[in-house]
Amino acid sequence: MNNLTIREACEADLGFIIGLIASDPVADQRDPPLDDDADQQLAGFRAIAGDPNHALYVAELAGELVGSFQLSFMPVIARRGAWRAVIESVRVAPEHQGNGVGAAMMRWAIERAQERGCALVQLMSDRNRPDAHRFYERLGFTPSHTCFKLRLR
Amino acid sequence: MNNLTIREACEADLGFIIGLIASDPVADQRDPPLDDDADQQLAGFRAIAGDPNHALYVAELAGELVGSFQLSFMPVIARRGAWRAVIESVRVAPEHQGNGVGAAMMRWAIERAQERGCALVQLMSDRNRPDAHRFYERLGFTPSHTCFKLRLR
Repeated sequence: MNNLTIREACEADLGFIIGLIASDPVADQRDPPLDDDADQQLAGFRAIAGDPNHALYVAELAGELVGSFQLSFMPVIARRGAWRAVIESVRVAPEHQGNGVGAAMMRWAIERAQERGCALVQLMSDRNRPDAHRFYERLGFTPSHTCFKLRLR
Repeated sequence: MNNLTIREACEADLGFIIGLIASDPVADQRDPPLDDDADQQLAGFRAIAGDPNHALYVAELAGELVGSFQLSFMPVIARRGAWRAVIESVRVAPEHQGNGVGAAMMRWAIERAQERGCALVQLMSDRNRPDAHRFYERLGFTPSHTCFKLRLR
């Protein structure tokens, strides 16, 4: 996708990113929106933007926002002590799904992880997303681990 | 386990932590040790210790080191923008496994995540660890996601 631009998100993009979450039936069923979400999401945005190990990106196609993801870098002792890249919240606008936006975003994220010297890129995907799982396997990812979650509130 | 102490790891504990990894057949098969591991692991330790969103802990039983884990906090926009706790590299010395050390460490980590206002605690476990998976489910974790990994080198 030669005409896709990926750039760091600014606060003005937060509405688009939250809209992507709202348009996702899996996320909506899991975490129905509540009144105080906007304040918490803005604080989350600023925490991400203010930390060099986290960044939120948006993808644009001919000036239109079409996708978003978060890329985080994590120091660990395991895996020989190499930094690890974590991709979070990969979302493509419903009307642009299936057009290669997601693959272009993931290839771009993998390049950034390589530049940072990471040994591993990881991401978690809800078991209710079989299409996403096939997508990640096509990109070369291995479903080697189970991700366990515990809700605290 | 009333006599278990959990404290932040210091550099002198790094040998113990690396020894735990070496005693783990799953980790050993996945990432056989290489010559430059020690430097990279020390750099990883310092990166963790120098960032308020990451910490490495050890558990002691009557003055003896018996376990270790990493607890990291991650800002996200998803899940209503609440901070997320990530538990990494949970390991108990072989001779102390099955004695409740792991459960005590996890309950302690979950309390820290609650104190930090996290909405969710997550961890990944290799599919080759069925006993660990039962352990996390007994603690209340749900295996709701698949974790995909891509090695970069």
